[in-house]
Amino acid sequence: MRKVVYGGACSLDGFMAGPNGELDWLVFSKDVQKEMARTWASSDTLLFGRRTWEGAVAQGGGSTTPGVKGYVFSRTLTSIAEPGVELIRDDAGTFVHALKLQPGKDMVVMSGGNLARSLFDAGVIDEIGLNVHPVLLGSGVPAFVSGARRTQLELTECRKLDGGCVLLIYKVKH
Amino acid sequence: MRKVVYGGACSLDGFMAGPNGELDWLVFSKDVQKEMARTWASSDTLLFGRRTWEGAVAQGGGSTTPGVKGYVFSRTLTSIAEPGVELIRDDAGTFVHALKLQPGKDMVVMSGGNLARSLFDAGVIDEIGLNVHPVLLGSGVPAFVSGARRTQLELTECRKLDGGCVLLIYKVKH
Repeated sequence: MRKVVYGGACSLDGFMAGPNGELDWLVFSKDVQKEMARTWASSDTLLFGRRTWEGAVAQGGGSTTPGVKGYVFSRTLTSIAEPGVELIRDDAGTFVHALKLQPGKDMVVMSGGNLARSLFDAGVIDEIGLNVHPVLLGSGVPAFVSGARRTQLELTECRKLDGGCVLLIYKVKH
Repeated sequence: MRKVVYGGACSLDGFMAGPNGELDWLVFSKDVQKEMARTWASSDTLLFGRRTWEGAVAQGGGSTTPGVKGYVFSRTLTSIAEPGVELIRDDAGTFVHALKLQPGKDMVVMSGGNLARSLFDAGVIDEIGLNVHPVLLGSGVPAFVSGARRTQLELTECRKLDGGCVLLIYKVKH
């Protein structure tokens, strides 16, 4: 069955962006690029939360590369113009569970908040990959929204990356 | 100058205890005991936040071992009965800064919250050591209280421990 992968770069105190969306603390190294290339090569589906999607559109990144399918989960949006990207207004957990039963590559969750929490609570996330950066941001967009249920993990990889970053990969125990 | 060390065991989503103080997710291994012994051997002073202190007293642990000095920072407590433990009602940052200038071993911050934030903001914390456990707690006592200022770190150690735990040690850049 195809995996659903959640994660990204975060600060040691668990923020994926600063309070005003700041990403100036991100370390871009060959090491990190190699990890990201590995993730993209094994995936063909992006699952967007509404805010992440709107942020991507505002930055001109609101489209997917050929061969990659995008889904945006929102109950407030009414339509999406971009080709290859579909608006989903149904329950995210149920929808993603059905997607996992279809053939395909891995799916990557593009959301720092509520979507991730819904998918964790629905038990459809299989892997967490964090690139922990050597900084405390103090506030911002949390990698894990408070209030989700307790979830046991299994560490599958732990490795230093360039720039004082640490790659942590976990399998989610269902 | 003596170091001020902050940290402890936490979940991947950054909690040091569950919403009702739960610690049933902690992994006790020889590996972890060795790390803790190393920390205690290099320190002679414990800096308690009020809540952590009261929790320790409630569990019968409200005293320090011989040769170890304790300070409890609180503006609401009026006295502390335990020998070797002193109540400090002054500004925590100023007090700890002065302590650092005195001869002695390292000092360990025993607080999951506001005291740590005050000390971070005062720039007196020198090292962060986290034992990241393979679990998402969803809610609880945060390792880093939101609202502190941005702090750059330098990764000095990254190592797997028994039970799927990861030891991360950082030097705080002042």
